[in-house]
Amino acid sequence: MGAPTVARVVVDVMPKPEILDPQGQAVAGALPRLGFTGVSEVRQGKHFELEVDDSVDDETLAKIAEGFLANPVIEEWTVRRIS
Amino acid sequence: MGAPTVARVVVDVMPKPEILDPQGQAVAGALPRLGFTGVSEVRQGKHFELEVDDSVDDETLAKIAEGFLANPVIEEWTVRRIS
Repeated sequence: MGAPTVARVVVDVMPKPEILDPQGQAVAGALPRLGFTGVSEVRQGKHFELEVDDSVDDETLAKIAEGFLANPVIEEWTVRRIS
Repeated sequence: MGAPTVARVVVDVMPKPEILDPQGQAVAGALPRLGFTGVSEVRQGKHFELEVDDSVDDETLAKIAEGFLANPVIEEWTVRRIS
């Protein structure tokens, strides 16, 4: 019997478009002063990397992301398996 | 003459493997108590989305990521254009 395989899952969480993002705005505002022009917008969110075994299906991942990694009131998120 | 095209760039920033990640560990530790088993590791980083115009080349993006989005001492990062 082989060892259980482990999959890597990425969850990206971003503030919804209508939500202000002061951290991203601070970076975007600072770049021209630092000599970098041409960046019109910066938004900052969170990036999670999970290692999960075979027992964790997509429905479970969706529950984990919605319940514990993102705040559905102010954030949107994507879940993808990368291996 | 057309309007300048805008590209979307994603920068993902993660704590280096040897750096402790208390936020990720807190999530990983809480999941079994909340009824979700099978997640062996969670690591939390940052996800940036930038809108840049044609004047911003890959070398400039690398400088922005290294200098202002990540802390090279404790973090690693990837830069990719998605459009």
